[in-house]
Amino acid sequence: MPEVIDSGVARTWIERVQGERRELVRDEVAVEEPLEIRVDGRALAVTMRTPGEDEELAVGFLVGEGLIAGAADVARVGPNAELEANIVEVATRSGLRRDPFAERRFHMTSSCGVCGKGALEQVRLEVPARPPAPVRVEPAQVLDLPGRARPAQDTFERTGGIHATALFTAAGELVALREDVGRHNAMDKAIGSLLLGEAGDAAGALACLSGRIGFELVQKAVMAGLSGIVAVGAPTSLAVELAAEHGLLVCGFVRDGSFNVYSGAEQIAGGPST
Amino acid sequence: MPEVIDSGVARTWIERVQGERRELVRDEVAVEEPLEIRVDGRALAVTMRTPGEDEELAVGFLVGEGLIAGAADVARVGPNAELEANIVEVATRSGLRRDPFAERRFHMTSSCGVCGKGALEQVRLEVPARPPAPVRVEPAQVLDLPGRARPAQDTFERTGGIHATALFTAAGELVALREDVGRHNAMDKAIGSLLLGEAGDAAGALACLSGRIGFELVQKAVMAGLSGIVAVGAPTSLAVELAAEHGLLVCGFVRDGSFNVYSGAEQIAGGPST
Repeated sequence: MPEVIDSGVARTWIERVQGERRELVRDEVAVEEPLEIRVDGRALAVTMRTPGEDEELAVGFLVGEGLIAGAADVARVGPNAELEANIVEVATRSGLRRDPFAERRFHMTSSCGVCGKGALEQVRLEVPARPPAPVRVEPAQVLDLPGRARPAQDTFERTGGIHATALFTAAGELVALREDVGRHNAMDKAIGSLLLGEAGDAAGALACLSGRIGFELVQKAVMAGLSGIVAVGAPTSLAVELAAEHGLLVCGFVRDGSFNVYSGAEQIAGGPST
Repeated sequence: MPEVIDSGVARTWIERVQGERRELVRDEVAVEEPLEIRVDGRALAVTMRTPGEDEELAVGFLVGEGLIAGAADVARVGPNAELEANIVEVATRSGLRRDPFAERRFHMTSSCGVCGKGALEQVRLEVPARPPAPVRVEPAQVLDLPGRARPAQDTFERTGGIHATALFTAAGELVALREDVGRHNAMDKAIGSLLLGEAGDAAGALACLSGRIGFELVQKAVMAGLSGIVAVGAPTSLAVELAAEHGLLVCGFVRDGSFNVYSGAEQIAGGPST
């Protein structure tokens, strides 16, 4: 059975099979555990996440869902009074901005992350007050981001099985990198870390994702006021659609010296439109 | 904006950037749309999925959640009377095996797929009546599965951005392959296709996954009576734990001529234990 040895990493015995060779070795896997998010005393959600930065995850999640506007809406976030593991409590200053208990049902099981919304109309959240700030990015900068995020992906280096979201300023400074078995959690944590940090704001940042770009990752980016998403993987149709509606820069397949721009191409310097 | 041209594939204009070169080209992306699953007239869940095989997805999902035991519990599955897009209706013969409306709250946003369960205790479902049947698999057969699934991954070939689950018999015959932007959906569809097919059963099958192995994918495999999971990616700690409890064969990092066995290693032929 896997045994947690470190934040985010568990050790387990495996058999490694290669041709005729079989050996029993110790290996490392990414930790996955349920986290219950409670808001003002009520259980709001459970996510399977990699433990660590639970406060950031909770705050990033609530902003991404439009349930709070930012860290200023939070009076306290942390473990509950009994210090139970895998529970994070959020106390709001004056309640949530809408009532999620009234509007959603059951859950769903999708790696895209839009789930539990008991009616199709609820998939799209309300548009945030501020549209993404347009940026001006050099192609070389886009190409550099995944490689600049990689050295900080410690758990990936050890387990090969965890997603990352890195946030960069438009000037290219790495300001947050978070890893999680869930790619939506990694995004929530990275955004939450900026909201809870000195800046108190994630607006204008560029997110660099280790994987693909689904609809809800674009929605989280828009809700937090990010300016763009740069990813190693592909976007989905609905991700491209939502990004285009909001003018969010979306670059995919950023690897091997080239990339595709799916939305906001006028924000890449040197293009036909400049 | 992306335009659906084919089952699962949309076409969109992109700018491809490589060095100094920039060209406007048409590209293909995987389709992502919400699907509402209604059971006996009530909205149970919404998932973001790739359209197609919605009936299989609904039935596989309900079995994976322990809400029905198999296709025999289903009186009818299909579009609703108004033929609305993105809604699938399930009519049960005599109700669900437990009441999901009573036990879950809100949703969660996690690529692991365990979401909306308003209490940590609800993460683990009840153990199914039948434990997985132990199999006997040659190492060469494990190594072959991803390559044998690949030629059928049509949408991946075109978009580079979609997951697949292939189901093989213990003898190595490919019996189902389904693709979806959500890896949990791909598993639900593949299992649902067997449940709704002639065999009416997915028990004893080996699942071959294009990605990583999270907790809930193991749970789905156990609930459907599969014998094992073979994946190109890594498992999480909780996936290994649950698989070990149930004796489910789990092989990860199946690529480049080698693989790791995380659970059920005695089921791989030729090992120290044979």
